[in-house]
Amino acid sequence: MKAIKDRAKEFFSATQDKICKTLEEVDGNKFREDMWEREGGGGGLTRVLFHGNVFEKAGVNFSAVYGVIPESLSKRIEVGTDGQFFATGISVVLHPYNPMVPTVHANFRYLERGDSAWFGGGLDLTPYYPYKADVIHFHKTLKATCDRHDPSYYPRFKKWCDDYFTIRHRNEMRGVGGIFFDYLLGDLEKLFAFVQDCAEAFLPAYLPILLRRKDETYDERMRHFQLIRRGRYVEFNLIYDRGTMFGLETKGRTESVFMSLPALAAWDYDYKPEPGSREEEAWSFFQPRDWLAEEI
Amino acid sequence: MKAIKDRAKEFFSATQDKICKTLEEVDGNKFREDMWEREGGGGGLTRVLFHGNVFEKAGVNFSAVYGVIPESLSKRIEVGTDGQFFATGISVVLHPYNPMVPTVHANFRYLERGDSAWFGGGLDLTPYYPYKADVIHFHKTLKATCDRHDPSYYPRFKKWCDDYFTIRHRNEMRGVGGIFFDYLLGDLEKLFAFVQDCAEAFLPAYLPILLRRKDETYDERMRHFQLIRRGRYVEFNLIYDRGTMFGLETKGRTESVFMSLPALAAWDYDYKPEPGSREEEAWSFFQPRDWLAEEI
Repeated sequence: MKAIKDRAKEFFSATQDKICKTLEEVDGNKFREDMWEREGGGGGLTRVLFHGNVFEKAGVNFSAVYGVIPESLSKRIEVGTDGQFFATGISVVLHPYNPMVPTVHANFRYLERGDSAWFGGGLDLTPYYPYKADVIHFHKTLKATCDRHDPSYYPRFKKWCDDYFTIRHRNEMRGVGGIFFDYLLGDLEKLFAFVQDCAEAFLPAYLPILLRRKDETYDERMRHFQLIRRGRYVEFNLIYDRGTMFGLETKGRTESVFMSLPALAAWDYDYKPEPGSREEEAWSFFQPRDWLAEEI
Repeated sequence: MKAIKDRAKEFFSATQDKICKTLEEVDGNKFREDMWEREGGGGGLTRVLFHGNVFEKAGVNFSAVYGVIPESLSKRIEVGTDGQFFATGISVVLHPYNPMVPTVHANFRYLERGDSAWFGGGLDLTPYYPYKADVIHFHKTLKATCDRHDPSYYPRFKKWCDDYFTIRHRNEMRGVGGIFFDYLLGDLEKLFAFVQDCAEAFLPAYLPILLRRKDETYDERMRHFQLIRRGRYVEFNLIYDRGTMFGLETKGRTESVFMSLPALAAWDYDYKPEPGSREEEAWSFFQPRDWLAEEI
């Protein structure tokens, strides 16, 4: 059998094709493709659909990079000995136009550093308006996926996700979480099976939400609220996100790294939702919550 | 005579009043005022004019904070012994609506840490459209101010500004620079006189540009270009800016720290100005240049 690094690379690349094909059917427009090479080793294939019918900005990145590990990054990665690294992964960020549809993010990656190898990844949802049923559907799909592999996974990775996607200077979360995991060492075949299952769960977790909300009506005020929350998304990605830092520090292609940024974002001075409004209700979603214990 | 820390605080506070009064006359609207206290010592007065006639977002912050120095910050500040700190300063960021008017930033500060004390600050311009005469006026005003104190100041602080306001992951500058200085130790009375002169130069350096451009016509395409460049402004402020980091790490008021962020910012995927366009010409402004050697 082929080495796991080659199979991971092939799987991530095939997953990119599959996700893009489905999203193109939903949107009615094609992704633009950009192949890029990394000075120092490897490269990637970025696919972006900008100003589509459904998606304001949708990015699906695949990459496989390797070489000497940059020193700044070496201190950050907590596992493995120094020297060469290899990293392959896929990253998805979808920002639809309609503020009733959440933004979604998924990332799966396989890394080698010296003698160590591990998987990392996750999926998380960033709604604008508070549809509890959507959040529960998303978390239920992830829990079912996790439970097929290890009953400890969902609670552990759900908490990790809540912790990770916290905007610390605001004391609020980027969205409603999902699952997040990193440095999964050990039986790599078992872990790879888990990661494949998670990647396969992306469309079933998100697509039903997208399809049932994408044609809802909305007004200027709702669009503005979406842009305010997208400002928070930018704050998180530029100040805290490891993937963004990894991309910039390994001198990945800047435009591929920043495909995660929304097309538009707003910063009102001292924005506060009106008491009793749906926007205020939405705000309560951005604190950790046990979604599966909720009544719809 | 009063201690320099008290005089610096009074001067910065009076400068805030003076700048705001002038800007209110230009805009026809009043600044909103927010007093805030810092847990751990001190506080500030934030003044913001949001959605005015001329200014889309204008922020003028004054603060005086003190207390035990946060550990994360202690490593970053290169001067002085550990222990207590005192910092007072003023910070101005003006984002006008009209894309023909540059965004401008000024910041002046006095810091004490243990036995050391120093001044820092600067002024810099971020135009959208390439009006060479405006940039030269701005730099000439700063050079004349510097030259009254020390002929070495302008070349030294101009270069420091070009280096500091570089968006490293893009290899481009945030704007066209100005002057920037930090850790000015030594004869504090002389340095204070210089900083006062710089602060007094803010209005003469910027106001003539604002007044002659604020009523120029512009179209959607120009507005969009402005939002693209404002995206770059956000990238710089959230990834590299020391003032932003200082504010977040000393647990200053988040909304006061982020008054520098534009009301709206855009991230097109792989934006490139059209060959031969004014936007492409603008782009050439975002590399260091000896503006005073230019012909108008």
